[in-house]
Amino acid sequence: MQTHNTRGIALVGFDADDTLWRSQDYFDDAQARFERIVSAYVDLADVGERLYAVEKRNIAFFGYGVKGMALSMVEAAVEITDARISAQDLHRIVGLAKELLRHPVELLDGVRGAVEAVAENHPVVLITKGDLFHQEQKVRDSGLADLFRRIEIVSEKDASTYARLFEEFDVTPKRFLMVGNSLRSDIAPVLELGGWGVHVPYHTTWAHEAEAELRHGGERMRAIAGISELPQALRELDAIARHAD
Amino acid sequence: MQTHNTRGIALVGFDADDTLWRSQDYFDDAQARFERIVSAYVDLADVGERLYAVEKRNIAFFGYGVKGMALSMVEAAVEITDARISAQDLHRIVGLAKELLRHPVELLDGVRGAVEAVAENHPVVLITKGDLFHQEQKVRDSGLADLFRRIEIVSEKDASTYARLFEEFDVTPKRFLMVGNSLRSDIAPVLELGGWGVHVPYHTTWAHEAEAELRHGGERMRAIAGISELPQALRELDAIARHAD
Repeated sequence: MQTHNTRGIALVGFDADDTLWRSQDYFDDAQARFERIVSAYVDLADVGERLYAVEKRNIAFFGYGVKGMALSMVEAAVEITDARISAQDLHRIVGLAKELLRHPVELLDGVRGAVEAVAENHPVVLITKGDLFHQEQKVRDSGLADLFRRIEIVSEKDASTYARLFEEFDVTPKRFLMVGNSLRSDIAPVLELGGWGVHVPYHTTWAHEAEAELRHGGERMRAIAGISELPQALRELDAIARHAD
Repeated sequence: MQTHNTRGIALVGFDADDTLWRSQDYFDDAQARFERIVSAYVDLADVGERLYAVEKRNIAFFGYGVKGMALSMVEAAVEITDARISAQDLHRIVGLAKELLRHPVELLDGVRGAVEAVAENHPVVLITKGDLFHQEQKVRDSGLADLFRRIEIVSEKDASTYARLFEEFDVTPKRFLMVGNSLRSDIAPVLELGGWGVHVPYHTTWAHEAEAELRHGGERMRAIAGISELPQALRELDAIARHAD
């Protein structure tokens, strides 16, 4: 990929779900509705935890995304109710997935302006994980696709995935900065490889994404309260990166 | 992408499922088991057709792949049995998906030799559709990943997808040849764009992939009986392509 900056940050990556547009709220809502369906059969305080345990053990089969979540919900509902749940109610659970796959894409406040401001001085790419089909649909519906040089939908956002992408992008880690809401998926692996990060927390986080530990590279990261602060944070980190070059 | 051939075919794409390794057999088997589960509730001759109708209307929600198939199976089972199906049996349907996602990758006869033979003279890429997570797993398990310059997992294999890939690969359609078992997904869209195709039929085809019409470019395609005939078919088409250049 052609990058015109010869020093400092040469390429900026953006996460999508809960960084550019609302996503986890819809999952939270689907989970709340799942719990209501199951609660007609059992009186348990930990339905959410039980669902998460099933989702977590199924990641090895299903990966991330709505479809895997829905299959885990069907499985969890059968287990939690000792198979007393009705076919209609299991059908409603599949229906939750369909609704989730069709929710409108709502950009978070200030997103378009922030991405445009960054794109003025840096090529930008989108890096997101989940169901390929669903993510493509959301990228298309977002109206932002044209701003990005590349759109990468990956099955896992770990260090080895980022290392492969850096090779494809022809960028070294120390010239790459990632913007995202998940410490686990957007920030920690990039810092680990020697890159830079801007963390924009979202008001709600899936338990799985909250399981993260920043072991190194904290000096190459900024946390900001909202994406409108991104251009300023990028300028600061870029200045440090140029100095270090 | 660097291609060293300056005339004729510069890049060869391979489909994966049912071209490099067995896949539809597992889907057929899962469908047969689905039909046995549902047949305990209803005596219908057209359970398979009803399932396909549900799958087809759900492609717009789920795209392709095992997880979408499993969700469609749950939905179809509820509909076909008028919601009389038990939670245990719906759970077994989710189990079919899990087994399908974990089947071993069995290369078809002669595949490694044929891909290696092609790769001696042409850079090769893999282009496959379906669940990102599952396809990545199969590519990894196949032991063939190192042979391919690029591995592209896409949500749909139509003309616009191939056009985008040609741009990413920096190749013109008339210098690209696609090898695959599906006329609909591997051959027709590539011919439509002006490219070349080698069709290797598989003994069983999903109804959806069989719905294809070759409207033009038949002279730029060869059908072969097995992948071991690929190097010869490629040489012939390459000679025509060089002549046309």
